[in-house]
This record gives sequence, C-alpha cells and structure tokens, in this order.
Amino acid sequence: MSDRLGRQLAFLAEADRLKSVLRANTLCDASRRENSGEHSWHVALYALVLADQARPEVRIDRVLQMLLIHDLVEIDCGDTPIHGSHDAVSVAEAESAAADRLFGLLPEDQARTLRALWDEFEEGVSPDAIFARSIDRVQPVMQNLESGGGTWRDFNVSSDQLDARVGVKIARGAPRLWDHVRALTRRYFDAPAG
Amino acid sequence: MSDRLGRQLAFLAEADRLKSVLRANTLCDASRRENSGEHSWHVALYALVLADQARPEVRIDRVLQMLLIHDLVEIDCGDTPIHGSHDAVSVAEAESAAADRLFGLLPEDQARTLRALWDEFEEGVSPDAIFARSIDRVQPVMQNLESGGGTWRDFNVSSDQLDARVGVKIARGAPRLWDHVRALTRRYFDAPAG
Ligand SMILES: [Ca+2]
Repeated sequence: MSDRLGRQLAFLAEADRLKSVLRANTLCDASRRENSGEHSWHVALYALVLADQARPEVRIDRVLQMLLIHDLVEIDCGDTPIHGSHDAVSVAEAESAAADRLFGLLPEDQARTLRALWDEFEEGVSPDAIFARSIDRVQPVMQNLESGGGTWRDFNVSSDQLDARVGVKIARGAPRLWDHVRALTRRYFDAPAG
Repeated sequence: MSDRLGRQLAFLAEADRLKSVLRANTLCDASRRENSGEHSWHVALYALVLADQARPEVRIDRVLQMLLIHDLVEIDCGDTPIHGSHDAVSVAEAESAAADRLFGLLPEDQARTLRALWDEFEEGVSPDAIFARSIDRVQPVMQNLESGGGTWRDFNVSSDQLDARVGVKIARGAPRLWDHVRALTRRYFDAPAG
C-alpha cells in the first residue's frame, strides 16, 4: 500500500515538470508563452464546456482523462509546434520512450491503463480520441485569435495552410465547431495586417 | 447555435486569465510560483491517479470536473493562501459574486450546471466534494515537501499547525493518504533546519 502510494506520488511530482515546458503560442493577453501544464487544464475545460459538439458516442469523462495526460511526454521531448518543421517518425519514437519512462513510474496496473489511454489518443482512431484531438487543436487557434495572430505571425501561416494543417483535424471530431471558428479565422486573415 | 458557441468560447477565453493568478506555493523545483491554471491541471491529475484513495461512493468523473472549475473565481478574487490571514466571510462573498459573473458568461443551462458543481465543491458536504477538497489540499503539501519547505517557511508554519489547518481536511476525504503524507511531513519538520 505504502509503496503503491509512493509510486503514485513520485509520478505526480515528476508530472510537475510539465509546467516548465513552453509551447509556441502565448496566453490570450500575449503576456508570455503558454506552458503545457496550464494548456492541459485549458483543453480539459474546453472539452467539458464544448461537450455538446461531440458525436453522441463520445464519453466526455474519458476525453477529460486523455487530455489531462496527453502532453506528459513533453517533459522529456518538449513541445512540437504544429507550424514548425519536424521529423514525425523520430518525434513519435522519442515520445513513445518518454511514455515508457513516465507511466512506468506508476504502479503496474495504472501504468498499463494510462499508457493505453495515451496510445489511444495518439492513434486518434476511437471517437473519444478523435474528439480529444479536435479540442487539442482548436484551443491554440483561439489563443492566436485572442492574442492577435500569435504563432500564425511567427511562422508566417496563411489561412489556407491553417485550414489544411489544423482545420481538417478540428472538423474531424467537431465539424460545427470548426465551421464557427473558421468564420473567425477568415475574418482575421482577411483583415489588413495591423 | 452560433450564439451558444460564442458564449462558450467567450467563457473559455476569460478562463485563460486563471493562468496569470499566482498562488503562494512554488513549482516542485522552486523555480517560480505556481499559477492557478496549472494547479487546476495538477490536482485533476492527482484525483485521477489517487482515485483508489476515495470512498467507494465517490464518482471520479465528477471530482475531475469540480477540480477543473474550482479555482476559476480567483480570476476576480486572487488566491487566498491557507496559511495567510483573511476574513472568511468577505472572501466567500467576493467569490460568490465572481462565480455569478464567470459562469454567467456561459449559456444558461451550462451556467446553472457548472455553478451548482462549484457550489457543491465550496459546501464540501457531498462525498465527491469532500474527496475533491482533500486532493486540493494535499497537492500543495507535496509541492512544499518537494521544494524544501515552500510556504511553511514563508509563513513560519509548525508541524502541529499543518496538522490542524490542512491535515484534518485531507484526512476527511482521504484518510490513508494523509497517514502516508503525514509521515513525510513529520520527517521534514523533525529534520534540523537547512
Ligand atoms: Ca485550490
């Protein structure tokens, strides 16, 4: 029992390091870059509030759990900006090794359960994972809109590139949400540069 | 529909401000103070991992939802450090007004649902709320242990004060967890000051 608790608390202390992993996008007020710990909270809140955008078979409680753990591997690997260039295969390998290490801190039964949940998110095939991934993609779009361009300016992203790289993935799990947000992004990209 | 989504997204953009509310305690590595957004993520992860510490009637999915929203009122009121001095009645009044404003940004049905969940957490009477409050109390204890004293040093807290102010509340929802953590805090307080 005590060893079980010891392992759980060691995992939770290690998880604290996610608060020091910086993402490409900023807070809505552009005051600083967002970290992956607070991002994980924000996307979980997104999923809770936007649950009515999910297909009927989606179980929001599982989506919340996925989103709480989806970025933990960044403790070892850092964040991979969607508009940056990277080698998808080597990123996936490094993240898999990070998942081995991090979930391996837990008692075996929980390591198995949470690793399977993380794998499900990564595979992006189940209805829960598809919705979770749509939510994970839409939050930085809203951060960029609120902060006046954010990573779209930094990486010189066009409206068409956004549609192709991000919009398609949001629309997969939450088509009406993307319709709504796309109208907002079109308005941003159509406006004269400020 | 579009107005509904507009209200939901306005609420989620406003929630972003919780990432700029600083708490009294630091990250585990003591590099900086923790903010209430990343704290909310961390306690939700605590609840998920430590679910086996809860009484059988506790529904962890509701606990996660409570913990995701429990600190939102701090956007208007700031964090109230447990070891600081404050007027509990005026804090409760200000937080209630903040809950009116913040949850009031949402569509009416969701405003009602999430406000009721926040009220349930604040009242701390239901089994779910009692467990959620235990988790919310134990995380800063672990942050202080990891960072070498943290707010116990800042506020000159003794082991007995910690037991009375915090331990009793952790033990209410998670008695075995507090047994384990109390052994760790005793060891910290018994060690010669570093
Ligand atoms: Ca709290």
